[in-house]
Amino acid sequence: MAKEPAPKSPASTRRSPCPVACSLDIVGDRWTLLIIRDLLLGRSRFKEFSASPEGIPTNILSERLVRLRRSRIIEQIPAEDGSKRRAYQLTEKGEALRPLLEALRDWGLAWEKGTRAALTPIPRRRASTAQ
Amino acid sequence: MAKEPAPKSPASTRRSPCPVACSLDIVGDRWTLLIIRDLLLGRSRFKEFSASPEGIPTNILSERLVRLRRSRIIEQIPAEDGSKRRAYQLTEKGEALRPLLEALRDWGLAWEKGTRAALTPIPRRRASTAQ
Repeated sequence: MAKEPAPKSPASTRRSPCPVACSLDIVGDRWTLLIIRDLLLGRSRFKEFSASPEGIPTNILSERLVRLRRSRIIEQIPAEDGSKRRAYQLTEKGEALRPLLEALRDWGLAWEKGTRAALTPIPRRRASTAQ
Repeated sequence: MAKEPAPKSPASTRRSPCPVACSLDIVGDRWTLLIIRDLLLGRSRFKEFSASPEGIPTNILSERLVRLRRSRIIEQIPAEDGSKRRAYQLTEKGEALRPLLEALRDWGLAWEKGTRAALTPIPRRRASTAQ
């Protein structure tokens, strides 16, 4: 891939009023949508995202979680085990990304040999924490 | 955005058999899908992609066009004006990305204020060149 300048913060700059471009400013990278995929699959903890087969580097995962919270796509919730560790769930805005993930899945299944689908129904949503 | 290593060539490495991940390996960046958008809008020439309001740098545009051809998402066609300049159109595989673009558009329109849709029906496809 050719060298290219790092994009500015998507929250502060918009390349155009095009909704496709604006959506890509927020979720258009190779890692962010995999975190969304994991959340749709019912994963909620940092270590669960980190354990996904694609092997997201932990520094990228941390940074993406911050950005996703700032964009109000995910929110923190108490961990199910009662520990103080953080867990995350999709907000309504984040759940609205499901058709996008389904389109990515369907295109991959149709056009890339050897892919296997794993997107299953999302478990029921837990109550939000106040923030 | 945190510093991160440049990804290897998507054609040669696959992060997992997940179709979402495989699709993102091919089209998961902030520029590639804007070129697809432009093609869906009927643009076909380098200078037309370059003139889009997001201002894609020409070196990135050149590199993405090469990758899109290698992935058989676009193909070269003769320029309509009969000149020797290159033009491009979506292949069947590329046209199959339309639901993905529509999902990005719909999410942007629903959740990002001030966005305006511009995706219009794709013009009829011209005959492919042999390659």
